[in-house]
Amino acid sequence: MDDPVLLTGAGGRVGQAILRHIGADYDWRLLDREPLSNDKIPEGVDEASVHAVDITDEEAVEEAVSGVRAVIHLAGDPRPEAPWSSVLRNNIDGTHTVVRAAAEAGVEKFAFASSNHAVGNYETPDRTPDMYRPEDEFRLDGTELPRPSNLYGASKATGEVLTRYYHDEYGMSVVNVRIGNLTEGHPPIDYERGQAMWLSYKDCAHLFECCLTADYDFEIVYGISDNDRKYYSIDRARDVLGFSPVDNSAEFEDEDDE
Amino acid sequence: MDDPVLLTGAGGRVGQAILRHIGADYDWRLLDREPLSNDKIPEGVDEASVHAVDITDEEAVEEAVSGVRAVIHLAGDPRPEAPWSSVLRNNIDGTHTVVRAAAEAGVEKFAFASSNHAVGNYETPDRTPDMYRPEDEFRLDGTELPRPSNLYGASKATGEVLTRYYHDEYGMSVVNVRIGNLTEGHPPIDYERGQAMWLSYKDCAHLFECCLTADYDFEIVYGISDNDRKYYSIDRARDVLGFSPVDNSAEFEDEDDE
Repeated sequence: MDDPVLLTGAGGRVGQAILRHIGADYDWRLLDREPLSNDKIPEGVDEASVHAVDITDEEAVEEAVSGVRAVIHLAGDPRPEAPWSSVLRNNIDGTHTVVRAAAEAGVEKFAFASSNHAVGNYETPDRTPDMYRPEDEFRLDGTELPRPSNLYGASKATGEVLTRYYHDEYGMSVVNVRIGNLTEGHPPIDYERGQAMWLSYKDCAHLFECCLTADYDFEIVYGISDNDRKYYSIDRARDVLGFSPVDNSAEFEDEDDE
Repeated sequence: MDDPVLLTGAGGRVGQAILRHIGADYDWRLLDREPLSNDKIPEGVDEASVHAVDITDEEAVEEAVSGVRAVIHLAGDPRPEAPWSSVLRNNIDGTHTVVRAAAEAGVEKFAFASSNHAVGNYETPDRTPDMYRPEDEFRLDGTELPRPSNLYGASKATGEVLTRYYHDEYGMSVVNVRIGNLTEGHPPIDYERGQAMWLSYKDCAHLFECCLTADYDFEIVYGISDNDRKYYSIDRARDVLGFSPVDNSAEFEDEDDE
């Protein structure tokens, strides 16, 4: 069997979306700050592969990356309203600890959960709400400079800078996924912005699987479903990673009206 | 008289280049972690305007920005080889403390000393040394994503992200100056890269004076003299800030050969 894949923040929303759909297909090493309850661990993952570790603990992180072939790094404070002290410690310093350890351990592929909040302030009053609508052609494509809408978003943009550095220095393949609005089953209701950046659980798992299987150097891609409403381009994810989303928030809009 | 200008890191190389040339022209409030010796303080700046403050001290920084119209923020660990722990504390957390305090205090203009190291890894083996030579047309212009060549550079790129956020949220005018190779009197000798990104003391002081006098929203510009050898565009600094450098490393190259 292939070497394992390390998943940090395994108990969070993104981690659970991934494990629910591709949990049986990889040899996982699961990390979370909190001990994971059994319902959050896929069948076939044994106890020895589940670790309660804070990513700011350098030694524990070094041990966790040892012998893995890929890392999906999701751990961090996920709150858009998180204060600076928390994102500085958990998202900036924590991500540095994980990416440095992975690069030094010779990990081949590193996928980082960045966020739409890293570029949230492109949604200026003169562009909104038009940019959230299907007919609008404004697109962000991952080549633009960060423009965070909160300190959480600034911390994610910093993660992208750090992964760039460790990619350049160590040759580790890196993909930063600016994740949209991940919800289970149904896109956000009565929320155009959320519908425009909706990411279904299934498409989320598929996208991160692409990060494990595709060949790439350094990428910044958007993680959303193939929504009619969109202001994030998914061309780069399609072209480089082979991302082929099956969901579209527009398919649920009629239901909303019923 | 106008409200004062706060200069952090006043005792450092960039701070001294500024004060040597325009020290008599502004009402300064000077900050440095170390007490400044008299030779580093321009004539006419009284003791009450000179503060020994570490920028990670939030209360002291809040006091320092109170009542100033502009901030030139230079303080931080200036070593390209500085370890993560130091740049995390001094350059990332420290810059956040200064830019947040400035924005909240209603400061009008904020100039941040970013660095060529924020984009140092664009200097790939296939581009160098050609890119350092006068005939080469490769240019970075400030719209490119960061690509740091060390953790110091990553911390400077993070500063650019943080200033972007506080600009967007508070409307404070912000300019990030990616400073090249600042040396006194003479460009670096036998060092093509250094000659390509040379910034004379005089041009440095003039550029930061432009940051105090021009009208702008959010900018990322390169801070170099008008060198024949260059791979940083100074068009944006010329067009938006009125930067008009008088020095050129090429004027010294014949001397080197003598």
